[in-house]
Amino acid sequence: MPSSHADAQPLLIHFHGGDDGDWQVTSHQTIVGPAISAVNAVAISDASEHSAPAWTLAGVVSNLRYTTAEERSALLAKQSGLGRPEARCAALIPIRKKASWWALAQDERRAIYERSSHTPIGLKYLPAIARRLHHSRDLREPFDFLTWFEYAEHDESAFEALLARLRSTEEWHYVDREIDIRLTRRADR
Amino acid sequence: MPSSHADAQPLLIHFHGGDDGDWQVTSHQTIVGPAISAVNAVAISDASEHSAPAWTLAGVVSNLRYTTAEERSALLAKQSGLGRPEARCAALIPIRKKASWWALAQDERRAIYERSSHTPIGLKYLPAIARRLHHSRDLREPFDFLTWFEYAEHDESAFEALLARLRSTEEWHYVDREIDIRLTRRADR
Repeated sequence: MPSSHADAQPLLIHFHGGDDGDWQVTSHQTIVGPAISAVNAVAISDASEHSAPAWTLAGVVSNLRYTTAEERSALLAKQSGLGRPEARCAALIPIRKKASWWALAQDERRAIYERSSHTPIGLKYLPAIARRLHHSRDLREPFDFLTWFEYAEHDESAFEALLARLRSTEEWHYVDREIDIRLTRRADR
Repeated sequence: MPSSHADAQPLLIHFHGGDDGDWQVTSHQTIVGPAISAVNAVAISDASEHSAPAWTLAGVVSNLRYTTAEERSALLAKQSGLGRPEARCAALIPIRKKASWWALAQDERRAIYERSSHTPIGLKYLPAIARRLHHSRDLREPFDFLTWFEYAEHDESAFEALLARLRSTEEWHYVDREIDIRLTRRADR
C-alpha cells in the first residue's frame, strides 16, 4: 500500500496522436459523435508535451467507481497486465457519456452498469484482453474516459465480440461520443 | 438537463489564498498533516490566474460519488444554495484521504460512508449550513476534496457540531490531511 501522497496520486497518462509513437494506427473509426483527426501513430507518455501531436488526450488511472470488492477479486484473479510480449494489438477507445448519465445518483448509475453486465462481460474475455481505464471527466477533457486494450492478434475476434456486447447494453445508450482506434506495436520498439 | 458538452463539463473552481478576495480569513487551523500558509483573504474564481496568491487550490464540482437517488431527494428538499445574503460566514476545508481509502472498492467505501452517517449528519444541519464539494484528486492536487460551507453567524455553533460529528466518524479515520479555514464575507462586496 503506498503511503506517500505522490504514490497515492492517480497516474496521469497522455495519448499523443501524430506521426511518432510506439503504436502504429491500423484503423480509425468514429462510432458516434464528432470525429478527431486520423493519425499515423500514438505515443503513450506521462509527459504532457510531445513532438507536434495532432491531438493529445489525457486521463488518470484512478480509484474504482462502480466495481465491488467481490468483482475486483474476480477480475484480479483472471486479468493480465499491459505490455505482454504477445499482445501486439491494441485499441484506444475514447468515450463520452451524456449529461443525463452524469446527472444520475450513484446507485442509479451502478444499477445500469450492473443490468448491462459490464463486469461479467469484461471478465469473460480475461486474461486475453488486457484493459486500462483512464478517467478524463474531472480534467474537463473532450472525452470522459479513455480505454486502452491490449491483446494478441489471434484474440482479435474475441475483442470484437467484447465490444459488440458492450455496445449493445443499456449503459451504451448513454454514450454520445465514441472513437475506435486500432493499433499495432511497432516491431522495432 | 444540459445538452452541450460545455454545459455538461464539471465546473472548475479555484480558491486563491492571499491578500485579495471577497472572503476575509478569521481563523486558520491545521487539523492533521502538513500545514499550508496562513493568508488574509480567499478569492473564489473560475480563473486559474490571480494576483500573486500564496496558494491556489483547485477542484471540480462533479457527479455524485456515493449519494443514492433517495438521499439526493432528501438533500434537495432541504438544502439551500450558496450566496444567501445572511450567510456571511464560511469555511474552506481541504481534505486528503489515505491511500488505503482510495484502494478500497466502491462498495467498501460506500459502506464506511454509510456507517459514518455522512448523509444524515449533513442533512440534519440543512438548510442552515450550505455546502459545495469540489473534487481535486483526479486533478492531482495536494488535497482530494475542497469543501466550502456558508452559514449565518447565529448558526456557527451548529456548524461546529456538524464538524465535530463528522470528525468522530469511521470515515474520518481515513483523513490524513485536513485544514480548517474560517472566513467572513467582506462588508463592501
